[in-house]
Amino acid sequence: MTPALTPQTTPSISLALVDAKAWVSKLMRQLQDEICQALRLLDGVGTFQEDVWERVEGGGGRSRVLRDGAVFEQAGVNFSEVWGSHLPPSILAQHPEAAEHKFYATGTSIVLHPHNPYVPTVHLNYRYFEAGSVWWFGGGADLTPYYPFTEDVAHFHSALKQACDAHHPDYYPVFKRWCDEYFYLKHRQEMCGVGGIFFDYQDSQGQLYQGLHPEGAAGIYSNQVGTPAPRRWEELFTFVRDCGEAFLPAYAPIVERRRSTGYGDRERNFQLYRRGRYVEFNLVYDRGTIFGLQTNGRTESILMSLPPLVRWEYNYQLEPNTPEAELYETFLKPQDWTKWTSPVK
Amino acid sequence: MTPALTPQTTPSISLALVDAKAWVSKLMRQLQDEICQALRLLDGVGTFQEDVWERVEGGGGRSRVLRDGAVFEQAGVNFSEVWGSHLPPSILAQHPEAAEHKFYATGTSIVLHPHNPYVPTVHLNYRYFEAGSVWWFGGGADLTPYYPFTEDVAHFHSALKQACDAHHPDYYPVFKRWCDEYFYLKHRQEMCGVGGIFFDYQDSQGQLYQGLHPEGAAGIYSNQVGTPAPRRWEELFTFVRDCGEAFLPAYAPIVERRRSTGYGDRERNFQLYRRGRYVEFNLVYDRGTIFGLQTNGRTESILMSLPPLVRWEYNYQLEPNTPEAELYETFLKPQDWTKWTSPVK
Repeated sequence: MTPALTPQTTPSISLALVDAKAWVSKLMRQLQDEICQALRLLDGVGTFQEDVWERVEGGGGRSRVLRDGAVFEQAGVNFSEVWGSHLPPSILAQHPEAAEHKFYATGTSIVLHPHNPYVPTVHLNYRYFEAGSVWWFGGGADLTPYYPFTEDVAHFHSALKQACDAHHPDYYPVFKRWCDEYFYLKHRQEMCGVGGIFFDYQDSQGQLYQGLHPEGAAGIYSNQVGTPAPRRWEELFTFVRDCGEAFLPAYAPIVERRRSTGYGDRERNFQLYRRGRYVEFNLVYDRGTIFGLQTNGRTESILMSLPPLVRWEYNYQLEPNTPEAELYETFLKPQDWTKWTSPVK
Repeated sequence: MTPALTPQTTPSISLALVDAKAWVSKLMRQLQDEICQALRLLDGVGTFQEDVWERVEGGGGRSRVLRDGAVFEQAGVNFSEVWGSHLPPSILAQHPEAAEHKFYATGTSIVLHPHNPYVPTVHLNYRYFEAGSVWWFGGGADLTPYYPFTEDVAHFHSALKQACDAHHPDYYPVFKRWCDEYFYLKHRQEMCGVGGIFFDYQDSQGQLYQGLHPEGAAGIYSNQVGTPAPRRWEELFTFVRDCGEAFLPAYAPIVERRRSTGYGDRERNFQLYRRGRYVEFNLVYDRGTIFGLQTNGRTESILMSLPPLVRWEYNYQLEPNTPEAELYETFLKPQDWTKWTSPVK
C-alpha cells in the first residue's frame, strides 16, 4: 500500500493550497491505482484495459475497464482531471458565485457490475472543484444489492461510518441521509439501493448539508440537517482520502462472502431488471454523468458506468414472500444499518 | 377501417374549436385502436395486454403492450389524456405564454422493438396541447434500423412525404430536417436512426419551424427554415390525422420484407448494442419522456418505450467493410432518402 498522502501544514499557513490541485490530482490517481490493483487480485481472472484520453478544451483522463472476469462482468475505474473557461449550468445552479471563472475539476469514479446476482453492485466517486477563489469536495460510495443480506449492508455502512467518525461525529449521520435522498428515483418513488454516504459542496465555510439535487429531492427528510463547521482544506482532503481508503475494506469482504453462491435464471433475470434502475438513475439524475456530458467529457468513459446487459419489463410484479419482495420492502427503505453490527475492527 | 375523423367547418366559424379536446382525444384513441389491431394481425402470435390508468392530478390513459410475439419482442402503444393546473418547466421554456394557465394534453405514442435485427425499430408520437388560449399540435414518426437497406428507408420516408405533401409542400422538407436534428445524440455526435418527420408547436400562427430542443441541437442545419403559414385548427387536425394513418403503410411492408431473414449472435448483439442508444435518447433528451416524468404520468407507461433487453459495450469498435460499419457511415447521416424511390402508390 502506498503511504497515505498528507499535506504538510502549519497552524497559520495552508501550504497545501499553494498547490491544491496537484495534491488532489495525485490523491485521485493513487486511489485509482490502489483500487484497480486490489480488484484485479479480488477477481483473479480479469485484467484492466487502460485508455488514456485528452479533452480538447483542457485536461483528460485514464479510463480502466475489466470485463468478463471471474467476479466482475464489468468493472470501470475512471480518473479524470479537466479544466476550462466556464462551469456548465448543472454546477452553476448550485454555485452561482463560480460563474465567469475558469474551473478545474478532478475525480475518481468506480462502478462494479458483478456477474453473480448475490454480489452487490457498488459505486464510488470522489471529486474536487476549483473556480476562482471557490473550491469544494464532493462524492461518496453506495451499495446496490440485488438480494437482501443484512450483514452485508451493515458491514458496508459500518466501514464508511468508521472512516467518517474519525473526522467529525456529524459526517456519517448527515452524509448517510444525503445519500438516501440523492440515490432516489423520484419517478418511481424508489430508492436505488441501500445507500452509503454522499456529500457535495464541502468547503471551508462548512454547511455540512447544503440541499439536494434539484431534480432528485426525495422528501424523505423534511429539513436540512447539520451545523456549520468551518474546516481547513487539509481537513477535507484527509477526510476524502480516508473515505477512499475505506472503500475496499467496505466492499471486498462482501464479494468474498457471496461470489460462490449458486444462482439460476430467476436471480439473473432479477439482477438484469434491477440494473435498469441503475441506468435510469445515471441518465436522468446523476450529477457526475450530467457534468461529464455537459463538459464534453469522453462519452465512453462517462457511460462506462452503464451495465453490460440490462432488462426492462413492463409492469413487473413482485411475488409476495420472496427475497425479491424483501429487497423492496425492507432494504430499499432508509434505515440505520449500523445498528446491526459492532464497528468494523 | 373506421372512417376518417373530419371536423365540420364553415368558412367563418371553427365549430371544431368548440370541442377541440374531444375531437383530438377521439382521434388519438382511434389511432391507438387501429394500429393495435393491425399490429396484432401483422405479428400473428402476440396479443395486447391493456392497462387503463388514472392520474391523481387529472386524466389518465390506456397502455397496451404486446410481448414475445412472432415479430415483436415488445410493442408498446399508449394513449393518454391529462390535464392540470400548470404545465411543467420543460414545456414552459418553449411556450412561456402558457404559464399560469390550466393545461390539457393528449397523445398517442408507439415504440416497437422487433426480435429480428433486420426489422427496424419504429417510433410514433402525435400529441395536442391546450393552455389558456394557446393550443398546438406536435409529433412525428421515425425509423431506427440496425442493418442498412436503402429500399426500406426510402419507402418509409416516401410514405410520410406523401402524407405531408397532401397538406403543404414545405411540411415534408421542414419536418424531415427537424426530425434529423431532434433525434440526435449530442454526447455521441451521432444520429439515433434514419429519421422520418418531427414537428412541435404547430399552431395557427404558423412558424413551421420554431427552433430546436434546447438540449439536442445538432447543428446539422445552421438556419431556421420554413415560412410563416397561418393555418386553421382543422387543417392541422387533418394533417396529424393523415400522418397517423400513414404509419402502417410506411412500416408494415418493411416488417413483411425482413421478418424471415435469418440472423445469428452477431446481428443480435449489434441490435442489443444499438438499443442502448435508444435508451440514452429516451432518458436524456426525449421531450415526451421528460414531460411524462415531470407531470407525474404513469412511469410504467412512459418507460414502456425502453427495450426489453439492452447491451452496453465500452469502446465498441466497428469492423471496416461490414454492414454495421455501413449503417454508421451511410445511414446514420442526414440525407434525402426519397430520391431513391418513386412516391408510394
